[in-house]
Amino acid sequence: MEDLPLNKVVRLLEPGPLVLVITSYRGKNNIMTMGFHMMVQHDPPLIAFVLGPWDFSYNALVKSKECVIAIPGVDLMEKAVDIGNCSGEHLDKFKAFNLDGLNGEQVKPPLLKQCIANIECKVVNTQLSKKYNLFVVAAVKAWINKDRSEEPIFHHKGDGTFSIDGQTKDMKDRMTKWKEITE
Amino acid sequence: MEDLPLNKVVRLLEPGPLVLVITSYRGKNNIMTMGFHMMVQHDPPLIAFVLGPWDFSYNALVKSKECVIAIPGVDLMEKAVDIGNCSGEHLDKFKAFNLDGLNGEQVKPPLLKQCIANIECKVVNTQLSKKYNLFVVAAVKAWINKDRSEEPIFHHKGDGTFSIDGQTKDMKDRMTKWKEITE
Repeated sequence: MEDLPLNKVVRLLEPGPLVLVITSYRGKNNIMTMGFHMMVQHDPPLIAFVLGPWDFSYNALVKSKECVIAIPGVDLMEKAVDIGNCSGEHLDKFKAFNLDGLNGEQVKPPLLKQCIANIECKVVNTQLSKKYNLFVVAAVKAWINKDRSEEPIFHHKGDGTFSIDGQTKDMKDRMTKWKEITE
Repeated sequence: MEDLPLNKVVRLLEPGPLVLVITSYRGKNNIMTMGFHMMVQHDPPLIAFVLGPWDFSYNALVKSKECVIAIPGVDLMEKAVDIGNCSGEHLDKFKAFNLDGLNGEQVKPPLLKQCIANIECKVVNTQLSKKYNLFVVAAVKAWINKDRSEEPIFHHKGDGTFSIDGQTKDMKDRMTKWKEITE
């Protein structure tokens, strides 16, 4: 994993990929799948997501106030779906899914070696966590896996079907109002 | 536009499309482009998004507490990008971009006829609007354009490039924990 400047985190999340969330609490690491997330601010990057008490990772997130958001490529689609359909309560998902953790720099939960990118996050606002299970986190360190950065991402279409990114269109010339983001 | 059951709104937004937001205030309708949004709750559907004072639509949203979120197909990609790179302050974007408004049912801002789908929304929470420009809205009525529902959506990659949905993979059989959403 190589360093990714924090002002580029938006490029990982604005397209709306299905992501994995890694938490760590009392010596136990866990992975879950998440589709409800968005960028809140470009730079410094803030992210919001929804993670509820129905998720085993909820308690770890609330207690540790940290997580890693990992972006899987399409080669991990089946694993990502299966990770989202079992609980970490009695299962070590790293072993079960043959995924390797790597040490991060700013937070305790491990990065996922097999993913395209990893974002280390710290919870900064919980005002809407009781009402909507909505957490705002700051991205404090980001990593890109250069070997996999060309791998297409994929999106949950909300019904158990998933779309894989196809063609990319470059519209940078038309971004006259937002030139700074295209650099 | 045909009625879309509200519990299907997640299928429009969870994949993370670039969307258009329509507001109406004091007789003036406006359209803007938005990439920072997420689902907050499946059913009844809640959505969060970020829309700030730098957007001309901000005042209309804050004052009227209503908007329409429209999902453009790839045939509208250039228009969507250009809509996001000009201001409605001195421009009628409906005329400028040759887009037709249709009357909604629950809110004042018009639906966009040329889009795949339209979601009528009412602001339900502004606790994080001062701090993060984050609004939570309830989807109160949704519409699908059957003629265009097969049109691919597209995603902003955060840097002025856009990815178009390619292949779709059906993983419904693996959604053992979330069967209800696949129906």
